[in-house]
Amino acid sequence: MAEPTRLDLLRGLLAESGHAAMYVSDLVNVRYLTGFTGSNGACLVRADGEAVFLTDGRYRDQSAAELAAAGNDDIEIVVTRDLLGVAAGRAPADLVAETHLLDVDSWQQLDRPERSGRLVERLRETKDDTEIAALRRACEISCQALEALVAGPLVGRTEREVARDLEWRMLELGAEDKAFETILAAGEHSAIPHHDPTDRELRRGDLLKIDFGARVDGYHADCTRTFVLGPAQDWQREIHAAVRESQAAGLDRLRDGVPVADANTAARGSLEASGWLDAFTTGLGHGVGLQIHEDPFIASSHTGRLASRTVLTMEPGIYLPGRGGVRIEDTVLVTDPDHGGEPDVLTDTTKELLEID
Amino acid sequence: MAEPTRLDLLRGLLAESGHAAMYVSDLVNVRYLTGFTGSNGACLVRADGEAVFLTDGRYRDQSAAELAAAGNDDIEIVVTRDLLGVAAGRAPADLVAETHLLDVDSWQQLDRPERSGRLVERLRETKDDTEIAALRRACEISCQALEALVAGPLVGRTEREVARDLEWRMLELGAEDKAFETILAAGEHSAIPHHDPTDRELRRGDLLKIDFGARVDGYHADCTRTFVLGPAQDWQREIHAAVRESQAAGLDRLRDGVPVADANTAARGSLEASGWLDAFTTGLGHGVGLQIHEDPFIASSHTGRLASRTVLTMEPGIYLPGRGGVRIEDTVLVTDPDHGGEPDVLTDTTKELLEID
Repeated sequence: MAEPTRLDLLRGLLAESGHAAMYVSDLVNVRYLTGFTGSNGACLVRADGEAVFLTDGRYRDQSAAELAAAGNDDIEIVVTRDLLGVAAGRAPADLVAETHLLDVDSWQQLDRPERSGRLVERLRETKDDTEIAALRRACEISCQALEALVAGPLVGRTEREVARDLEWRMLELGAEDKAFETILAAGEHSAIPHHDPTDRELRRGDLLKIDFGARVDGYHADCTRTFVLGPAQDWQREIHAAVRESQAAGLDRLRDGVPVADANTAARGSLEASGWLDAFTTGLGHGVGLQIHEDPFIASSHTGRLASRTVLTMEPGIYLPGRGGVRIEDTVLVTDPDHGGEPDVLTDTTKELLEID
Repeated sequence: MAEPTRLDLLRGLLAESGHAAMYVSDLVNVRYLTGFTGSNGACLVRADGEAVFLTDGRYRDQSAAELAAAGNDDIEIVVTRDLLGVAAGRAPADLVAETHLLDVDSWQQLDRPERSGRLVERLRETKDDTEIAALRRACEISCQALEALVAGPLVGRTEREVARDLEWRMLELGAEDKAFETILAAGEHSAIPHHDPTDRELRRGDLLKIDFGARVDGYHADCTRTFVLGPAQDWQREIHAAVRESQAAGLDRLRDGVPVADANTAARGSLEASGWLDAFTTGLGHGVGLQIHEDPFIASSHTGRLASRTVLTMEPGIYLPGRGGVRIEDTVLVTDPDHGGEPDVLTDTTKELLEID
């Protein structure tokens, strides 16, 4: 029997929830289900079988090619300028839609469908082989680019120049784009969790925090490393070691069947033990895939458990305003317990506090 | 008396429509009104004066700095994890919101405010001096990068390599990023209106269509030029001349007080006269600013008139599937009739059918 397609899996969730059909309009969810990468498309999925893809004339050829390439030859394609009108006309009475994403005006045109909940997002949490391959490649490219970059020299160049250099290396290595705006922060800037690179020059003595990633086939890598320019000072070593320990503790909980909240408890517990918890002010991690931030988000309030094939980040940090900060972040694949179940770190490059030039 | 701020102008529109307050949650509209560039923020604007900006703890410092830099010291900043809850608590009964953009779940949490319509988008159609300066700079950078690129040589390199080269040049010239994914299409690919660069090599005899732009301070440039690699053939000259004539006809209608639809009539009329109208399959133009596509969209159905300080594109084309295509596109500022009123072409670089190597 053939593997169930992503659409089949969604049909299963719809049947489970007792709804006849779903209107999927979020473009990331549409891409996930159909393969379509354009800027205007939606999908009407019936629990009992038929699926209709809707787009406008600009995407007639592209959508046919992309749906076929993704193995969705069985989806009917309707080309129209009035996606909502056609969808409303063809939808059964018991329709659900992404009310957490769909705008109010469109929802009213669709005759106010019920809430679907995050059904497609739930499917997207566990990755199939194609997705894992793309994520793995994106992470490899990211690591190779970083390793080449830190061979240096970096001192005397600006944050902006070095960030651009890193992005350029990822493109040369085959990335389709950067996964997000590179955070490259030197010295006191490294204390700012999210920092846009400036014209500040990198100087000896600076901590250098780099949060970056490549995108491959729509899939994002997310990696942070922190280095020091020249010899490390004691306080820099101390906070780097504390973050590294916290990251290892959190990472170790990224296993099949473990409550998502456990990784939060472990990483925060480590920071508490080393006395640095107050200097950690951000989230600890998030799913990565077709979006740079997606389900699951690691938090104490998360009541679910991790499943194998989930890909997510682990990224504790210590931020000392005016002085500097350290973050260490990996993109990690939760693996099958039948094959060992060890967390598979896709961003496989050193986490040492390198002293670079 | 001080210039009215963007918030003042919105208050005027609110008062006109008889509503007490507006909840602005679209991040582009929020940026326009407040200067905030982060990923989570909203603004509650009362017609009678008070404005409240809402964001979460990550953006406490950044929002304070950005709002102050944009001259919005008078906006109260509330840091909260529950933007919708705080907004709902502080909003007057007669609230409007962006129902064309706001998701259904948030709208319900806000107690179902009335439709605001595209009030902020309407303000954004006409640009102030700061915006025009950013757009002008983005267009200058784009043109300089293109001129350097086409000095060549290009033959033998791939679409992807050449697209990346162009993007790199824009960054070197001071762009913060590319304005959108570069369309660089050679030979038969140039017949595809929107084409992602591939590994196809550029060859002598190819038409080369390049649709690209730089982004500066959040503002987008949008420019298309079509060249030929080596000596032009007669059919290439013919369609290039027809597009150029159509573009000039449309561009000439981008004047203060002229119906938006006139530009459509003029450009399409020209293509009809030259016999190529059937080979034109896309839209003719759109506003450009904080978004690459924004109001106004040039179409026969548009019932409004152009106002000075509107910035928009004019981009007719001829697309011959399997053979090749030509598009010529400028980003154009509609100018003040008291100062001549001539359309100000911001993407000021040659529209000749250059024969390049």
